[in-house]
Amino acid sequence: MTIEAFLFTLVAILGSAKLLGELAERIGQPAVLGELVAGVLLGGSVLGIVDPNEEVIHLLAEIGVIVLLFEIGLETDLRRLLKVGAASSVVAAVGVAAPFLLGYLVGSYLGLSDLQGVVAGAALTATSVGITARVLADLGRLQEPESQVVLGAAVIDDVIGLIILAVVGQLVAGTEVTAGSVALTTVLAFGFLGVTLLVGRMVVPPAFRWLETLGRSGTLATMALVLAFVTAYLADAAGSALIVGAFAAGLILAPTPQAEPIQRGVVSLGQFFVPIFFVSVGAAVELQSFLEPGVLVIGLALIAAAVIGKVAAGYAPVWFKGRKIVIGVGMVPRGEVGLIFAQMGLTSGVLDAGLYSAVTLMVLVTTFIAPPLLKALFPKGAAPGPSPGGVAEMTTEA
Amino acid sequence: MTIEAFLFTLVAILGSAKLLGELAERIGQPAVLGELVAGVLLGGSVLGIVDPNEEVIHLLAEIGVIVLLFEIGLETDLRRLLKVGAASSVVAAVGVAAPFLLGYLVGSYLGLSDLQGVVAGAALTATSVGITARVLADLGRLQEPESQVVLGAAVIDDVIGLIILAVVGQLVAGTEVTAGSVALTTVLAFGFLGVTLLVGRMVVPPAFRWLETLGRSGTLATMALVLAFVTAYLADAAGSALIVGAFAAGLILAPTPQAEPIQRGVVSLGQFFVPIFFVSVGAAVELQSFLEPGVLVIGLALIAAAVIGKVAAGYAPVWFKGRKIVIGVGMVPRGEVGLIFAQMGLTSGVLDAGLYSAVTLMVLVTTFIAPPLLKALFPKGAAPGPSPGGVAEMTTEA
Repeated sequence: MTIEAFLFTLVAILGSAKLLGELAERIGQPAVLGELVAGVLLGGSVLGIVDPNEEVIHLLAEIGVIVLLFEIGLETDLRRLLKVGAASSVVAAVGVAAPFLLGYLVGSYLGLSDLQGVVAGAALTATSVGITARVLADLGRLQEPESQVVLGAAVIDDVIGLIILAVVGQLVAGTEVTAGSVALTTVLAFGFLGVTLLVGRMVVPPAFRWLETLGRSGTLATMALVLAFVTAYLADAAGSALIVGAFAAGLILAPTPQAEPIQRGVVSLGQFFVPIFFVSVGAAVELQSFLEPGVLVIGLALIAAAVIGKVAAGYAPVWFKGRKIVIGVGMVPRGEVGLIFAQMGLTSGVLDAGLYSAVTLMVLVTTFIAPPLLKALFPKGAAPGPSPGGVAEMTTEA
Repeated sequence: MTIEAFLFTLVAILGSAKLLGELAERIGQPAVLGELVAGVLLGGSVLGIVDPNEEVIHLLAEIGVIVLLFEIGLETDLRRLLKVGAASSVVAAVGVAAPFLLGYLVGSYLGLSDLQGVVAGAALTATSVGITARVLADLGRLQEPESQVVLGAAVIDDVIGLIILAVVGQLVAGTEVTAGSVALTTVLAFGFLGVTLLVGRMVVPPAFRWLETLGRSGTLATMALVLAFVTAYLADAAGSALIVGAFAAGLILAPTPQAEPIQRGVVSLGQFFVPIFFVSVGAAVELQSFLEPGVLVIGLALIAAAVIGKVAAGYAPVWFKGRKIVIGVGMVPRGEVGLIFAQMGLTSGVLDAGLYSAVTLMVLVTTFIAPPLLKALFPKGAAPGPSPGGVAEMTTEA
């Protein structure tokens, strides 16, 4: 890619994302919806300007979702998250099991093979933390109890989703899957999060106190980003997800006195990188493939399984005093992990092009319906408003 | 490049740039010197972690220098720049002619062919605006009259350098060069800058007033960056340089009431992108090739031509009341344009590997000696201090 083509692509992405994000808010929708639509328009289905598989765009989109989850982590109080930890865990567990079973059953009914049903079901398991968190931030609702449950559950089921990914990856490759190997993957993935938070809370605050004495405000925010990249890298190496590591870095830095200057710097970076992620998600949509009747039938069945499974998960923590429908709907959007399952199924030959499109349709529809549904579910005018200088500043009216 | 490798590279670049930048300031040098050294260490000569020719790194480095010149433009008062315009023009003209002639003569004396002498001389013409501007910002001296002359002259000689590049490109390719084609290139390159500034001053301020009414602070800075990308793209298309376009965008926005919030956002982005540029410049250095005696002799001769030619240019505006030695030394660092000449000479077969290394050595040495020399030339303790929230915030003590 030449620098000229790169500049052209960046102008198209940032310009259209801001424009359509603004337009979405004007018609009462979260800005992220506008950015996703911008992506569909720029992608191969319509204008063909943005190819989300282009190396540079793909890497910058990944930086975008890492920066986003780091920002969300910086705004999250770990104690409040742990307070709803039991509810989050139950929502995550049911939210993985129910859609998986429903997806498998729907697949069997429609004549899919066992392995095809497993892949399709697995693609239904993981909520897209990025989209859900961004919608809640857009709406200024990140600090409400329901949002905290959703955030915790989405992070947990992302970790579970990647464990399932590892197992399903072995299944489609024909490798033997043992209880021991599954247990090891699970311990590594969850152990990483615990160890990072524990060690990070001890090591990081003194390091950033020292960095602050250097007196260069820019160093602070940059080194915070470096920390997020390091934990993202380590999370990935431990079999967990990049974004789980980035979120953990935010959780570690959130209670430090340096959190505010760091946040200001990271928000500006998010302005640049985060739209690249959402536009890429939109650009991956292939509208043409959804027109085939076979794709539509299986796709709609998977969408039903996806929505029912996650809404049911929202009602699973029966003791939780809050609006359970909000939790369920908050868990609905699927994203990158679902698409990775679809991709894996396609390249391994387990899914044909039609089934692949059906899974993509499910990801697309769950992603696009969640923002307006969540917006409708929150009572009007009662929003506590975006926290000053936080993620919400990216997208909501000041 | 995988996302894991990309994160690793970014951590190495940002971490070492901040660390060595800090160290450089501790020993009384501008931070950019530390970032260049970080690049040499990370490059192929030592650790081999950063390959400046890697597509993603190269593109992000280009964004880095675009963001840097946009920042510099945002801090520059066009009227003050025009006030020293005559001095800048003379410095630029002599600063192109003198090093070119000296380089050609030195080459002839050392037995180079005419064409080789032309390429080597041409590589001596263009001052690296990025490095000079960054050093002046590091030192908090961007607003002094000498700095304004240097800034204007460096921008002008970058435009001249690219005209020469077009002409020399035709020469080494064996294409006929006519006075008409040279004149057309010249008119286009300078015409672009004039038209952009005139049209921009009319169109851009009302557009940004409207953007501000939308009330989303993030939109403002992002759209300003989009403007800089657009003018950079147009400048490039007109045969001028990307960074000249980015600088023009800064000049256009500088007097608007929105300049301050824009600057805050852009400075944060600069924290991320600008070190990638300077580390890339350092990483392109191949220390090994400088040890050959032939390379050393021609390299040292070119360095002498490069320094004498630009210092002489500093004394050319005889009427200018200021420290002319500061102007001359400020013009010394060569950068990307010099390397492009070297690269072009190498790929076309005009330069052999030894001559290529000699030109690279000249770029390296002029780049590395300018920061400490400038620092030494400015009287201690009399710095007006960095402008609040400006480029200098990136690198100088708050």
